[in-house]
Amino acid sequence: MEFVKITSTQNDSVKHVIKLRDRRPREKEQLTVLEGYRELTRAREYGMEIVEVFFAPEHFLGQNEFPLLETFASEGVKVCQVAPFLLEKMAYRERPEGLIAIAKMKRHTLAEMPVRPNGLYLVAEAVEKPGNLGSMLRSADAAGVDGFIICNKCTDIYNPNVIRASTGALFSVPLAEAENQEAYDWLKKNNIRTLAATPHTDQIYTDVDMTQAVAIVVGTEQTGLTELWMEHSDLPVRIPMLGKIDSLNVATATTILLYEAARQRNWKTSARL
Amino acid sequence: MEFVKITSTQNDSVKHVIKLRDRRPREKEQLTVLEGYRELTRAREYGMEIVEVFFAPEHFLGQNEFPLLETFASEGVKVCQVAPFLLEKMAYRERPEGLIAIAKMKRHTLAEMPVRPNGLYLVAEAVEKPGNLGSMLRSADAAGVDGFIICNKCTDIYNPNVIRASTGALFSVPLAEAENQEAYDWLKKNNIRTLAATPHTDQIYTDVDMTQAVAIVVGTEQTGLTELWMEHSDLPVRIPMLGKIDSLNVATATTILLYEAARQRNWKTSARL
Repeated sequence: MEFVKITSTQNDSVKHVIKLRDRRPREKEQLTVLEGYRELTRAREYGMEIVEVFFAPEHFLGQNEFPLLETFASEGVKVCQVAPFLLEKMAYRERPEGLIAIAKMKRHTLAEMPVRPNGLYLVAEAVEKPGNLGSMLRSADAAGVDGFIICNKCTDIYNPNVIRASTGALFSVPLAEAENQEAYDWLKKNNIRTLAATPHTDQIYTDVDMTQAVAIVVGTEQTGLTELWMEHSDLPVRIPMLGKIDSLNVATATTILLYEAARQRNWKTSARL
Repeated sequence: MEFVKITSTQNDSVKHVIKLRDRRPREKEQLTVLEGYRELTRAREYGMEIVEVFFAPEHFLGQNEFPLLETFASEGVKVCQVAPFLLEKMAYRERPEGLIAIAKMKRHTLAEMPVRPNGLYLVAEAVEKPGNLGSMLRSADAAGVDGFIICNKCTDIYNPNVIRASTGALFSVPLAEAENQEAYDWLKKNNIRTLAATPHTDQIYTDVDMTQAVAIVVGTEQTGLTELWMEHSDLPVRIPMLGKIDSLNVATATTILLYEAARQRNWKTSARL
């Protein structure tokens, strides 16, 4: 198959991709940029709408890129070849893999969040760093989380660094963005027990039953959880710290808590419990 | 107490700190740069030799900085005040906290690594990213690890980003740098069982007893463990992945394994088992 070839930095599509590096145009146009074979494959698989794909075979790492491009083309997606130096300009990665796409952002609301019997949920308040959010998505996917509620968000979930750090889990984990109160009410309404991660309790996380419907709630690294969660969660839980340092990174703490839930559930997702 | 005040960008000490941002001068001079109240306090507490301290009170976050400076001065460390714009130049952090120090690197050899009955050890092969290494140090400290052996290192452990990401755990966790074979022989000699983290086994990590002397061995994110560890470790262990993504970040995987060991040990360090 032959594709249109772009060689000019003045090309509108090239300029568009570069512009979408900034949050404001992303949010205004409700578009984001994806990069790499794995991300594009997963985004497609999980129903992200891909608007336009750019490729430079000189940067390809494997043999699977062309079949993926043919699939996109056959689905009516605009696919363009770009000169290698242009792809480097468009890429946010240091070592680009030769594939970049513009995709439509999805809206993530609680109304669409699946409610599963014995579901396992993650609630994170005001995560600031894209790398942490990406890492939390990756752990949430790996631990079989049914849904991830991002409260009072500080980070654009379609930030390219979130997508990259999540290695595609951004597309596979059911997500909702909500205010604290809205998330709290949704969990209550659906009888999902809330466990608030905090150092201010004697209750160790491994002593708590996580096999029923449960939401693990984590706060920011600097200030922890806000009052709503601290005062109204069903149970506070603590991760013991046996050394000299006094706190764990929020993504690390989240991983520890989620993997304890997965262990207690005998490595079964809630659909199989 | 009055301190010498530096206001010129041409000052030799200022230039020295900036030069030490690069790995080569760090390794040649065996010096590194520390930043922030927490890091300086911990470095001093754990016996790092501090050569020179710089401060700009305009950037201080709290009230504890001056007593720390007086302590350094009373111990014979050279302490200099610098103009705020100079401190910003010298700092590697975006939001500097007003304290920077030059410290002597320590050599970390297996000969000095403590051998504890029922000790818990971490072995990491060729970690590339400073952020991952820092994060692994932080988890190692929190999970009560007795020693961390860094094999075939790819990252300078005194990289400022390692120090920062470790939040001081670089100083509190006993460390050794070694070649794979040397590390393997040391573990064998000391009857420390090796658990190799790999997806290529059915043995789930939570089904393995970690209450005796044990070393958790992790490889690189891209290629996993090399042959030596894959073929000669006592037991391979796997972390179940319940979702769509196929791998965890190496620091995340390490945290999960170490916290399982800590759980099995009833949150007691080996000294208290």
